[in-house]
Amino acid sequence: MWNEISGGVCAAKGFTAAGVHCGVKEGSSPDKNDLALILSEKECTAAATYTLNRVKAAPLYVTMDHLEDGTAWGIVANSGNANACCPLSHENAQTMSEAAAQVTGREPGDFVVASTGVIGQTLNIGAIQAGLPRAAAALNRDGSDAAATAIMTTDTRKKEIAVSFELGGREVRLGAIAKGSGMIHPNMGTMLAFLTCDCAITQEMLSDALHEVVARTFNRVTVDGDTSTNDMCVILCNGMAGNPLIEWKDENYQLFLEALEHVCRALSRGIAADGEGASRLVTCRVEGARSEESAERLAKAVVGSSLVKAAMFGADANWGRVLCAMGYSKAPFRPEHVDIAFRSQAGEILVCRQGDGLEFDEDQAKAILSQDEVIIAVNLHEGEDAAECWGCDLTYDYVKINGDYRT
Amino acid sequence: MWNEISGGVCAAKGFTAAGVHCGVKEGSSPDKNDLALILSEKECTAAATYTLNRVKAAPLYVTMDHLEDGTAWGIVANSGNANACCPLSHENAQTMSEAAAQVTGREPGDFVVASTGVIGQTLNIGAIQAGLPRAAAALNRDGSDAAATAIMTTDTRKKEIAVSFELGGREVRLGAIAKGSGMIHPNMGTMLAFLTCDCAITQEMLSDALHEVVARTFNRVTVDGDTSTNDMCVILCNGMAGNPLIEWKDENYQLFLEALEHVCRALSRGIAADGEGASRLVTCRVEGARSEESAERLAKAVVGSSLVKAAMFGADANWGRVLCAMGYSKAPFRPEHVDIAFRSQAGEILVCRQGDGLEFDEDQAKAILSQDEVIIAVNLHEGEDAAECWGCDLTYDYVKINGDYRT
Repeated sequence: MWNEISGGVCAAKGFTAAGVHCGVKEGSSPDKNDLALILSEKECTAAATYTLNRVKAAPLYVTMDHLEDGTAWGIVANSGNANACCPLSHENAQTMSEAAAQVTGREPGDFVVASTGVIGQTLNIGAIQAGLPRAAAALNRDGSDAAATAIMTTDTRKKEIAVSFELGGREVRLGAIAKGSGMIHPNMGTMLAFLTCDCAITQEMLSDALHEVVARTFNRVTVDGDTSTNDMCVILCNGMAGNPLIEWKDENYQLFLEALEHVCRALSRGIAADGEGASRLVTCRVEGARSEESAERLAKAVVGSSLVKAAMFGADANWGRVLCAMGYSKAPFRPEHVDIAFRSQAGEILVCRQGDGLEFDEDQAKAILSQDEVIIAVNLHEGEDAAECWGCDLTYDYVKINGDYRT
Repeated sequence: MWNEISGGVCAAKGFTAAGVHCGVKEGSSPDKNDLALILSEKECTAAATYTLNRVKAAPLYVTMDHLEDGTAWGIVANSGNANACCPLSHENAQTMSEAAAQVTGREPGDFVVASTGVIGQTLNIGAIQAGLPRAAAALNRDGSDAAATAIMTTDTRKKEIAVSFELGGREVRLGAIAKGSGMIHPNMGTMLAFLTCDCAITQEMLSDALHEVVARTFNRVTVDGDTSTNDMCVILCNGMAGNPLIEWKDENYQLFLEALEHVCRALSRGIAADGEGASRLVTCRVEGARSEESAERLAKAVVGSSLVKAAMFGADANWGRVLCAMGYSKAPFRPEHVDIAFRSQAGEILVCRQGDGLEFDEDQAKAILSQDEVIIAVNLHEGEDAAECWGCDLTYDYVKINGDYRT
């Protein structure tokens, strides 16, 4: 088991971080950090997942290239610009890693490069080059907060978490920061999530663990159905905890996997709760499924439905839209077996049994749906499998934020 | 070729229609028609397409049953309740056809039955039974308008069209009404669309024509990505035009197909333009594709993207979101070949060439995107195929309408 601790990406031994303002976006507030740097004092085993969007931002290609040897020393990331779809995108992503290498005394290939923000506008690489020496000077063991705020775009809250757990008699620490609020419908990769750990683990085991966990966590979040061009989830492990190297899928691997899943799940929920314009976190839990895959597909269709999301905003117990979304999810199930309930801190109410609507207390339903987190609980009564997906409601503010984001 | 004429579903010989208020929804305005009846004076060849949602409303099953013999005499439809997912739904749909048969002196099996409105609430069948004698008494050759308004829910405009064209020396008339505003992401069937025609055509040819046209029209509309449980598109042809029977895919079939496509395309565009809360019609035209299927998939992803839709609301030339949506459409294309332009009555502006952003005049872009209809023109430069899909912008009013639709 694990304990939540403070420190974010600096919780693990040997990692420092910093976040500074360098002015990537013209006219941006000097109070808003927009450049993050994370560095390990030892070489790290690294693994990553990337967006499956056919249109990938340049930093992803550069990162893929740099991680080909399975190692890295640090991460450089900016907000305010996605560095995607511009003639200079690729060159600028490379320049970014060169600049990071220069100020840290490392090689460009030692760095993961990430960007987030508007697509299709030329990156102000000069601002980043000018900001990096300051970022390097600011690197410290308490820098996770600053780095977490530096990668925020429309996020209203920073996403940061860390845990400690025991592996082979040694304390291992795993921490992370993430950003994500809009253009969230991860597919294999996700948003930006940077994880650091002092665990000793082989690249193969690390990559397997990351992919397995991402499939069950980040890939089960949707804010608006739009899979980003810049999704990336990276983990760096520097081995400084001194635990016996994880090289098989043994008990220690399992412990690491569980801690990793806890961290990624917390970040996923945080991203959904902070979805653009969101007023509440909406979780759909599908149980009684014949397979986890079906359960996931159904739950994702429900939390992804604009109509369900708008109803959640209005705290309206419109369960017909839940069943309708399940119906077009392409997952097999029998409508006539389905039970649907709404659940929150304020209680639980069954609104549909065996596919038919029940009479229910509208006031009670309203009270349940008015909470910060609402669970749509579906039971298919067809098997033993289950899955949970996370989203948020669709509000006026989503439209406001996205009606004029670019300018 | 065809000429647009008036008369809607009564344009074709031998059809009468009516729309009355019967009070399906408690407290609904007596000025809002909610019960439509359409009747032919001769037996019709009939064809239909239905939603592919796994959750289908009861009227669809009853209609499938009634159309099994390929014939029908009329259509009975209500708004205010979807008659879906209730213990009595199936029985009520049957009762509806029985009541329609009774007041018209026909058999229940002669009727198409359709419902639209909220899912999961018991249909007020008594109101429909009480209203049908009045509807039958009101049947007349000018009744299309009343029927068109009777099937509206959140629609702000009625959708009605008719055309006349020549077939084998005879004038043939084809007319239609449709409803659709929210829960619009048709898949094989669509919303409610009722078409009447006095053409003589075999059931096989009629069904082929309808499926072919629906695939290119209604199935290329999306308002919110939610495929309804009640989608249905039905065509009735009573043969009264006296044209030589269409029984092969000959020149006459082609003429009929073209007229049918014109009608369905106009209704599709009307539905998209009247999408819930919409302030403008958004068309995405993808050209230069290797296949029509790819072009359609790409265009549909673009008009279906919440982020593209919100940008269109803000008249924001955020083409990066267009390319991003194409990227996750799962259709093959090369981002580095793609040109993107925005077009409207106010002009045209190229914003992306070969996958990279261009400098462009923001004021000009704003003017182009501020029109009632905006075309997102994409050229893949990879082949000769093209497809067009229709949607609308995402506005505050969409959230407002759907935040509390049920109560």
